[in-house]
Amino acid sequence: MGLQIHRTVEHRPESRIDEAMGVLKQRFGDRLSTSESVREQHGKGEDHHPVVPPDGVFFAESTEEVAEAVKICAEYKMPVIPFGTGTSLEGHVAALHGGLTIDLTRMDAVLEVNAEDLDCRVQPGVTRKQLNEYLRDTGLFFPIDPGADASIGGMTATRASGTNAVRYGTMRENVLGLTVVTADGRIVKTAQRARKSSAGYDLTRLFVGSEGTLGVITEITLRLYGIPESIVSALCAYPSLEAAVNTVIETIQLGVPVSRIEIADEVQMKATNDYSGTDLPVAPMLWFEFHGTEAGTTEQAEMVKAISDEWGGGDFQWTASAEERAKLWQARHDAAYAAKNIRKGAEVWATDVCVPISRLAECIVETQNDIRENNLIAPIVGHVGDGNFHLVLIADQDDADEMARANAVNERLVHRAIAMEGTCTGEHGIGMGKMDFLIAEHGEAVSLMRLIKKALDPENIMNPGKILRV
Amino acid sequence: MGLQIHRTVEHRPESRIDEAMGVLKQRFGDRLSTSESVREQHGKGEDHHPVVPPDGVFFAESTEEVAEAVKICAEYKMPVIPFGTGTSLEGHVAALHGGLTIDLTRMDAVLEVNAEDLDCRVQPGVTRKQLNEYLRDTGLFFPIDPGADASIGGMTATRASGTNAVRYGTMRENVLGLTVVTADGRIVKTAQRARKSSAGYDLTRLFVGSEGTLGVITEITLRLYGIPESIVSALCAYPSLEAAVNTVIETIQLGVPVSRIEIADEVQMKATNDYSGTDLPVAPMLWFEFHGTEAGTTEQAEMVKAISDEWGGGDFQWTASAEERAKLWQARHDAAYAAKNIRKGAEVWATDVCVPISRLAECIVETQNDIRENNLIAPIVGHVGDGNFHLVLIADQDDADEMARANAVNERLVHRAIAMEGTCTGEHGIGMGKMDFLIAEHGEAVSLMRLIKKALDPENIMNPGKILRV
Repeated sequence: MGLQIHRTVEHRPESRIDEAMGVLKQRFGDRLSTSESVREQHGKGEDHHPVVPPDGVFFAESTEEVAEAVKICAEYKMPVIPFGTGTSLEGHVAALHGGLTIDLTRMDAVLEVNAEDLDCRVQPGVTRKQLNEYLRDTGLFFPIDPGADASIGGMTATRASGTNAVRYGTMRENVLGLTVVTADGRIVKTAQRARKSSAGYDLTRLFVGSEGTLGVITEITLRLYGIPESIVSALCAYPSLEAAVNTVIETIQLGVPVSRIEIADEVQMKATNDYSGTDLPVAPMLWFEFHGTEAGTTEQAEMVKAISDEWGGGDFQWTASAEERAKLWQARHDAAYAAKNIRKGAEVWATDVCVPISRLAECIVETQNDIRENNLIAPIVGHVGDGNFHLVLIADQDDADEMARANAVNERLVHRAIAMEGTCTGEHGIGMGKMDFLIAEHGEAVSLMRLIKKALDPENIMNPGKILRV
Repeated sequence: MGLQIHRTVEHRPESRIDEAMGVLKQRFGDRLSTSESVREQHGKGEDHHPVVPPDGVFFAESTEEVAEAVKICAEYKMPVIPFGTGTSLEGHVAALHGGLTIDLTRMDAVLEVNAEDLDCRVQPGVTRKQLNEYLRDTGLFFPIDPGADASIGGMTATRASGTNAVRYGTMRENVLGLTVVTADGRIVKTAQRARKSSAGYDLTRLFVGSEGTLGVITEITLRLYGIPESIVSALCAYPSLEAAVNTVIETIQLGVPVSRIEIADEVQMKATNDYSGTDLPVAPMLWFEFHGTEAGTTEQAEMVKAISDEWGGGDFQWTASAEERAKLWQARHDAAYAAKNIRKGAEVWATDVCVPISRLAECIVETQNDIRENNLIAPIVGHVGDGNFHLVLIADQDDADEMARANAVNERLVHRAIAMEGTCTGEHGIGMGKMDFLIAEHGEAVSLMRLIKKALDPENIMNPGKILRV
């Protein structure tokens, strides 16, 4: 953790990067940057991995320019790394073999909004907040909220989700189609704008979650939703994690169309009180949000309150006022800052597993014990309606023993989740950090992924060293 | 249309089918059938394509047996065609290059139901009705309903959907994971049981809709849903197609979580009255279904009634009684029989396009005109909430001129849908019938599909001649 800079990049012998850089420079001039600060800024996400800067950063302004740049890179076998807001968490943007980072933040136009069809088409550099700001007057919104104000391109590439996924799904369900630049620089549209289709292989879903290893995403068509007439939020403390999780299971099984259910454990709640000066119970806590008509959200809140009471949930405060809702969610949104605040100056390491909800309480409790036994600090938060949770591991990078214990806790967490039929990553992706875990989770299936990678990127120039070893 | 039997199958020179058949016979004995009637029965779906029987039909009883059979076929380069209930509509099961049809109907076990996690794992031969029968005591159900009592394996392979997709999604959204036998006979699991994952390429979605061309699906993990407390249905006639479609658009845009919205045009309604002896208005008609709490479904029905009134909708009958609901839906379920009844003995040809909903009225009206101008009979029904509709083309196979006109109408329909940013197939798939339309729709993207096909099935033994020419 901390800012290690790996200045010596492991260049591949076949890469003719200097020649490629010359051609790119001639073509793109000042929009190809080789400044040290720009390169370093593009060599790392918001993660615990080291900085590995690329040879150059190209600020692209159109799909055609991306295609042109990729064609040049392909000719000289120079790696290509797509870059959005740099908020990824598993070393996705590290230029492990050098190469060209294509910064897509200047491609930030909302290209069309089809209000009647509840969809829109955007460039990859549009962020989710920017999109929702743009949509405000239409009465529509885009619900996927991974926390960070990430770019839609990056969210697509990592198959992001977050707090609203329990109702609205993840990027997997909400991307209708893509324009991608392939590894040989072709421009390909993966789907038309129909809501559903049985026309051939699902290329859209193949590129969603491909983390830049199959091509560069340059346009995204998204599903939109009407802004609900009524939004009601609630916050409730539980006597135990099991009680909180059982409340969630019953809520979902009863078909209450809850939009958000978030969990935090007592360690997180203490950190939150310390950080925010709040006086919330230091106990497992659930946040709920209900979207619908006024009658509908009232009914949903009442149903969940009844379930919550059964499981010994405390005072079930619910509110439809926008101001009070914002206050209520603040504690959840501040979770990461609160965690960082536990030990000032320490970097944090966000883990990310997802298990079937029936195994969630068991998985969290075993993990809490492991954290305690290893004398670590790691508050837990999660998108509990989907069975997805994160440890915020706080460890000092200069303390080799603490780092080793943190590593071991994460490794056991992942294997625990896999043993419970869960996944090594619910929403952060594989990047460079979880390639061994991908193999542990998928086994033989990884060989099919490798065949696909080799078919679509035979020279392995697209974000090499991520997801798969080829 | 009708039962043309292509007895001379176009065998590929490299296939050593006789040798393979000998080895298969020795291994599987009586469960490898070469009887003419069994082979013919497996050479055609419920479509307008000719019968092309395979060389043999193997009734598999386990994933391991499927793997063994595929390994033998791979060794002798013998084509493999997976077969469920035979209800496909685009020639998916025709043995165009001979080969072995693997009948999966004996693999019809529900392997596990995880009620707390709202999921289950089934073998591919389980039909949707059989699954829902099995689930009845759990309070859960599987919503995808393509009309036919298709097998879950076949529904997965064609990315099926049907009447409930507007609320619950298609097979794309409802398959959590698969076990597949690859073209070289390996057994691969595509995903764990977590609700969401960002772990590598989305192999699950790649096999959903692959129509047996990438492997044989031998287990499917599905999402389930709680049976709603209240189900309310309604039926309403409209002064025009545009009025009906505008009612739908506004309903969806308002976020009313309607479960089904089905349309039929006046031609279909006349056929329905003639067939069922009903006295329904001969006008564009919408069926609605609402799922939720009692208060919720009442509210939904009232909201839709208000919208419907605005667009001149007629008497908006709605009912929560199971018996009356069944009666009300009967007319919709009988649509195909009613269409067949228009000209007795004629085969029918179900077309299938899907467009953005804002273009739906225009697409249907232009198509109605085309049908009329070409002096054809083709009632229209559709899953209008998704923009998906079908003509039920009625043409006499022995009348070359009528067949040519029917073909031309279908071709224009597909190109009309594509021009409106729609798809050549919303739910039936490509099979052998729409390969040119796939190219018209996807263009350059088809070359990526071809690369994937070649990577996963280099000898082209998996259902050759479907989806793609390789």
